[in-house]
Amino acid sequence: MTEPSPLEPPPHLTSAQFRELGKRAVDWVADYLERVERLPVRSPDAPGAGLARLPESPPDDGLGGASDPLGAWDAVFDDLTRVIEPGLTHWQHPSFFGYFPCNASGPAVVGELLSAGLGVQGMLWATSPIATELETRVLDWCAEMFGLPSAFRSSGAGGGVIQGTASEATLCALTAARARAVESDAAQDRCVAYASDQAHSSVLKAAMIAGLARGPDDRERVRLIGTDESGRMRVKMLREAIEADRARGLAPTFVCATMGTTGTGAFDSIDEIAGVVGECAPGAWLHVDGAWAGCALVCPEHRAIAKGIERADSFCTNPHKWLLTNFDCDLFWVRDRAALTRALAITPEYLRNAPTDAGAVVDYRDWQVPLGRRFRALKLWLVIRHYGVEGLRAHIRQHVEWASWIEGRVRADGRFALAAPRALGLVCFRLVAGDAATRTLMDRINASGRAFFSHATAVGRDGEPTMFIRMAIGATRTEFEHVRHAWELVVRTAQEVLG
Amino acid sequence: MTEPSPLEPPPHLTSAQFRELGKRAVDWVADYLERVERLPVRSPDAPGAGLARLPESPPDDGLGGASDPLGAWDAVFDDLTRVIEPGLTHWQHPSFFGYFPCNASGPAVVGELLSAGLGVQGMLWATSPIATELETRVLDWCAEMFGLPSAFRSSGAGGGVIQGTASEATLCALTAARARAVESDAAQDRCVAYASDQAHSSVLKAAMIAGLARGPDDRERVRLIGTDESGRMRVKMLREAIEADRARGLAPTFVCATMGTTGTGAFDSIDEIAGVVGECAPGAWLHVDGAWAGCALVCPEHRAIAKGIERADSFCTNPHKWLLTNFDCDLFWVRDRAALTRALAITPEYLRNAPTDAGAVVDYRDWQVPLGRRFRALKLWLVIRHYGVEGLRAHIRQHVEWASWIEGRVRADGRFALAAPRALGLVCFRLVAGDAATRTLMDRINASGRAFFSHATAVGRDGEPTMFIRMAIGATRTEFEHVRHAWELVVRTAQEVLG
Repeated sequence: MTEPSPLEPPPHLTSAQFRELGKRAVDWVADYLERVERLPVRSPDAPGAGLARLPESPPDDGLGGASDPLGAWDAVFDDLTRVIEPGLTHWQHPSFFGYFPCNASGPAVVGELLSAGLGVQGMLWATSPIATELETRVLDWCAEMFGLPSAFRSSGAGGGVIQGTASEATLCALTAARARAVESDAAQDRCVAYASDQAHSSVLKAAMIAGLARGPDDRERVRLIGTDESGRMRVKMLREAIEADRARGLAPTFVCATMGTTGTGAFDSIDEIAGVVGECAPGAWLHVDGAWAGCALVCPEHRAIAKGIERADSFCTNPHKWLLTNFDCDLFWVRDRAALTRALAITPEYLRNAPTDAGAVVDYRDWQVPLGRRFRALKLWLVIRHYGVEGLRAHIRQHVEWASWIEGRVRADGRFALAAPRALGLVCFRLVAGDAATRTLMDRINASGRAFFSHATAVGRDGEPTMFIRMAIGATRTEFEHVRHAWELVVRTAQEVLG
Repeated sequence: MTEPSPLEPPPHLTSAQFRELGKRAVDWVADYLERVERLPVRSPDAPGAGLARLPESPPDDGLGGASDPLGAWDAVFDDLTRVIEPGLTHWQHPSFFGYFPCNASGPAVVGELLSAGLGVQGMLWATSPIATELETRVLDWCAEMFGLPSAFRSSGAGGGVIQGTASEATLCALTAARARAVESDAAQDRCVAYASDQAHSSVLKAAMIAGLARGPDDRERVRLIGTDESGRMRVKMLREAIEADRARGLAPTFVCATMGTTGTGAFDSIDEIAGVVGECAPGAWLHVDGAWAGCALVCPEHRAIAKGIERADSFCTNPHKWLLTNFDCDLFWVRDRAALTRALAITPEYLRNAPTDAGAVVDYRDWQVPLGRRFRALKLWLVIRHYGVEGLRAHIRQHVEWASWIEGRVRADGRFALAAPRALGLVCFRLVAGDAATRTLMDRINASGRAFFSHATAVGRDGEPTMFIRMAIGATRTEFEHVRHAWELVVRTAQEVLG
């Protein structure tokens, strides 16, 4: 047999070189996290500033082909500090209070590294059995530690899966809801979805992708139900909307209850919503979006927010928000896994295999939008093993305690007002002087780089939207001192703004 | 101000502990990759075997609370070898030839580690400007090194984005296609999608999620166009299908051309398909799915497969398949970014910010299904910098050369037949003795653990499906010796099977 002509091989890292660079990267990350507190939270970059720091074309010859690749990689580490760092808004900064937190932690970073190093695909059970079975087991662990109904565990007809984001979980739930409705003889183009007007934008986005809405303003088959002044869905209005739709011959198909809205952290009453669904739209799919607040269920004292969840068809929450597990890690449970997979399963010949054909295994590709999937259960497994259930509870409890302290400060200062009741680790406040002052306050603090907040609006009793600052306490490295300093900064800056 | 009562903090890793565990993990990965060649490629686990190695409940107290956390973590590293490793099918094994490759590489693993350590969100430009701008720049680099039309670059009306998978890219393209059709007054429920019957299952899955198909067998608004014996779409049949649909008052909306089918690696003629679309369905969206084969465009000698791509609306390819960048990393380009973002953009108040309002920046959340996104451009940047364009070419060229050698062996042995023309690094072959023998051959090799293949079927001239073995050469650690040994194993096992 003639052999192929030898070609120049690509300059792979040797094992020794990988060890060296991997360890330098670990040290770089550790150094970064040690100094992040001294960096401005928000990037000072103007649009295009980062582009200007980057070459316009890729290199023909790489660092790996240099006579001393490890020496050549010095340029990469220099660039991490010179090119990348100034363009970062530091989500791991202890004074990051914007949006919702996006927790990273040492054990999760180690898990992500191991997952990347293993480089296996978990799309089918057969493509790496432990990627599926560890995920199944860890999701059962989480169901137990969140006190979820047994119907969501793999031992019954349900089960859990790791999705990338709550957006994807919502889209899968909506897709499953529609498939179930069509199986019950609903016309596909008459299916209607319901959520509150404070539900996350991903519900509307899922409706757009699924074809229930032709755009963000199309309300033909999407109902955004009004909310009370706390931001909770008005369940009576849900009932009226469902009844009106049924009277028009439409098919109420999907209802999303929000456990912790993005604006103010309001909790829809799952129990009451489930009652309306059961009574007025039996067969409709009730999904509970607990992307952020659901993480708090790890603490038994916070489980009142889940009242009625045993009547939901699905639930999701994101340990990448508030349980120390690096993005992406959304946990999505369903009570009827067959209803989900019927909506998402396709088995081309090239994916057929004996365990799948025998129905002996779970193939998680049928629980999600994409086919491929990384081994994300590994990082969650390491987080739970490292912190233990009690450690995770301690994490949540600190933030709730500190948010409660901030709430007290807001109440005690007549220049400020709460824009909504505190929700777990989220405090929403504004200057009573009005929107302009509140916005200036936030902008000045964010521009200072010393803390970072985001904002939202709520419609007040006068029907006018009011802007407020959201302080979401939950970053991994936040300690009470950062919370106290942030409040001092708010007060000092408010004094300047109010003159 | 009274202070909150101090609570027990969660047992975070100290910086020193993180350095230590991170470096142990780097060494564990390096050790694993050194020994992976001696492990059985396919996991020997039976269903449930992995579950049985895992505790049923999460620990109340974690390793982090131990008096010696680093010592306690010995249990984790032991479990990686004892619990995880036996359940893995080793995609990074040099004798893994199944499915398509899923390339990992040292630089990409380092990039994934850095991204996890930084823990920033790139959903908006404002949430970490460099995450967006590095992505834009690196996608422009890739457009240049793939020889893509200038319309796909960010300097014009187009641009590129990193998606998780080609499945998501296809779903986004389909969503954009439908939105554009609706803008042109097509009724949403009359939009039709077209792909070949050899297109990836993700096209059908996207149609199911988007609501064009009520299930995998619903062909009311999805047409899977017949293919020739090489697996290429019969463009004449596409024309007929489009014309028939138009005659019925339907709206041809989305056409997916496949650059390298999953079964046999066949290349649809983008040029001819674009001609039919332009003539019979102007305004329809032409997407090119080059998930695997598109990576070969880095080599100028392989660009004939892209002929006509300048007339496509979008294109995707996966460096996580064949360009050394860890999963997940799908590159998705569009020629009209506004058409994409009109279909996917929603801006709730809590995401509004000055640079977005000014239209001065790209917000990649509007280019994808989810809201959140990791900093995936980092690993791709490091891969391109480490290997350089020439190094990436060398990677592809080796595999193509070796596949060509296998093709020669198949042709030279009368017991074997090619099931399709070799496509780049993919060789499809079977035993002329028939399907049963071919399947036994594959099953025995896979059970041996010494190499791993997957299979597919093609419809022969007699109209009957024939099963064949797919040998996809492309794993990072594969060298010619592994290819040669795999072929020797095939021949030896075939002798046993044929008796």
